[in-house]
Amino acid sequence: MYRSTPLAMEFCWKHRVEFGETDMAGIVHFTNYFRYMEMAEHAFLRSIGLSVHAENDGTVVSWPRLRAECSFKASLAFEDEVHVRLAVREKTDRTITYDFRFFKDGERLVATGSTTAICVSIRGSERSMAAIPIPDWIHEKLGGEVA
Amino acid sequence: MYRSTPLAMEFCWKHRVEFGETDMAGIVHFTNYFRYMEMAEHAFLRSIGLSVHAENDGTVVSWPRLRAECSFKASLAFEDEVHVRLAVREKTDRTITYDFRFFKDGERLVATGSTTAICVSIRGSERSMAAIPIPDWIHEKLGGEVA
Amino acid sequence: MYRSTPLAMEFCWKHRVEFGETDMAGIVHFTNYFRYMEMAEHAFLRSIGLSVHAENDGTVVSWPRLRAECSFKASLAFEDEVHVRLAVREKTDRTITYDFRFFKDGERLVATGSTTAICVSIRGSERSMAAIPIPDWIHEKLGGEVA
Amino acid sequence: MYRSTPLAMEFCWKHRVEFGETDMAGIVHFTNYFRYMEMAEHAFLRSIGLSVHAENDGTVVSWPRLRAECSFKASLAFEDEVHVRLAVREKTDRTITYDFRFFKDGERLVATGSTTAICVSIRGSERSMAAIPIPDWIHEKLGGEVA
Repeated sequence: MYRSTPLAMEFCWKHRVEFGETDMAGIVHFTNYFRYMEMAEHAFLRSIGLSVHAENDGTVVSWPRLRAECSFKASLAFEDEVHVRLAVREKTDRTITYDFRFFKDGERLVATGSTTAICVSIRGSERSMAAIPIPDWIHEKLGGEVA
Repeated sequence: MYRSTPLAMEFCWKHRVEFGETDMAGIVHFTNYFRYMEMAEHAFLRSIGLSVHAENDGTVVSWPRLRAECSFKASLAFEDEVHVRLAVREKTDRTITYDFRFFKDGERLVATGSTTAICVSIRGSERSMAAIPIPDWIHEKLGGEVA
Repeated sequence: MYRSTPLAMEFCWKHRVEFGETDMAGIVHFTNYFRYMEMAEHAFLRSIGLSVHAENDGTVVSWPRLRAECSFKASLAFEDEVHVRLAVREKTDRTITYDFRFFKDGERLVATGSTTAICVSIRGSERSMAAIPIPDWIHEKLGGEVA
Repeated sequence: MYRSTPLAMEFCWKHRVEFGETDMAGIVHFTNYFRYMEMAEHAFLRSIGLSVHAENDGTVVSWPRLRAECSFKASLAFEDEVHVRLAVREKTDRTITYDFRFFKDGERLVATGSTTAICVSIRGSERSMAAIPIPDWIHEKLGGEVA
């Protein structure tokens, strides 16, 4: 059994705001903060040798979202450099919750967010999806303690 | 003064899931639920004679988000018809909070969400943005009581 | 054998420009015209009883693009109503070429485009894709003549 | 006067395919190739000290598209690294035409495309857009010959 434990893993993902991410108010459209959180999460998983959508022994293990949330304090504009700091807040037997802080040009906090993803298997040509316990080979890379 | 009051306004926005809204897991990518909430909100505003980005006496009044959140219970697939039921949960002097419920084919609840938008003015060619009290002409269309 | 024949099918798809489709120049971002062409194409296919991604006898038949092109004459703004007029320009044994004309508020021509899609089968859990002749049941709905 | 001259400038932009860029066919959705071309173009402009949307002496100079085109030879999948090679094909008094070649993992040609952008000024709070000759300070950075 893996215990639900607060973890200390941190990761920083950097991005320059693209023109197509702005809207007619001249700032980054809010839906892109959710894309940024996902891109930071996937870069984090790659950094520890994982992929958010990985085949292992004929089964795809993927991580759909259970919940996503973002609070906006200031705006981002075209060509701003945004640093997204990811922390693994909690890991349970089947889910991971990430916290995110967005910094403009690495300094000013402009937004905070969080997402919870659930581990699923996807099987067969009809791609049926079912929640599963996080496999051991993933737990190990995420650094969870075995109870 | 307008009081902060729970309101009873409801609105339903319908959408058929587009191919480009799916991802390689075969379901609607989660960021699109935030697009759907915004599209439902803007259709609601149009239905009461407003626009989310309206010019009035030389000033643009717009509604950036303070917060957005969504919880996912089941998935949506290509060509599913999704009904998004919007309710105005709370209105303050400067903000509106909407609740959203997503139904697949009008029946099965697949997600719930909420957003809070703040009223701002955008002025000048440099488009500087400042929070303002919701103007009376907007309050009236939203059906708020005058205290 | 089906002959390659110019066809006379026409279809009109209507859309109100969404806020999230604009960019900081205050107009619809050009990539959305390609989304609009695809949405018009898929609505056209539904209108004749087809789907762009359909399972038939255990095989998925899908239509990836070989080519897409758009020329822009004027811009579209938030809440403009755009009418996209689709015509099937040419159908070969394996491909369909569509022409598109974009009208602002149903009147002013703002853009023209075209796409060519190729018929493929997608098989197995590894989803391998291979070009195939357009199946008869699709040809018939598209109104092609049998040589 | 600047002459219309084929130019020899080349630039390479690299990108790892994001999960949200795939669709239910398991490959990169075709509209993203147009996003990639734009991101490569803007990175190229930054590399020579320009921005696609720059203020100079109170006027915004921007580059809306006149035309965009892409031909697809093979597909890209999640986490593929794509190299987009940009070349300035032609520069006229008011327009720039770029050619793009997309390579999977830096080796296999998967797509080719081109875009033509026109130089415009955007003025005033109503942001009216008008085509203008490419300003000298931009011509110089682009390395055009003065006739």
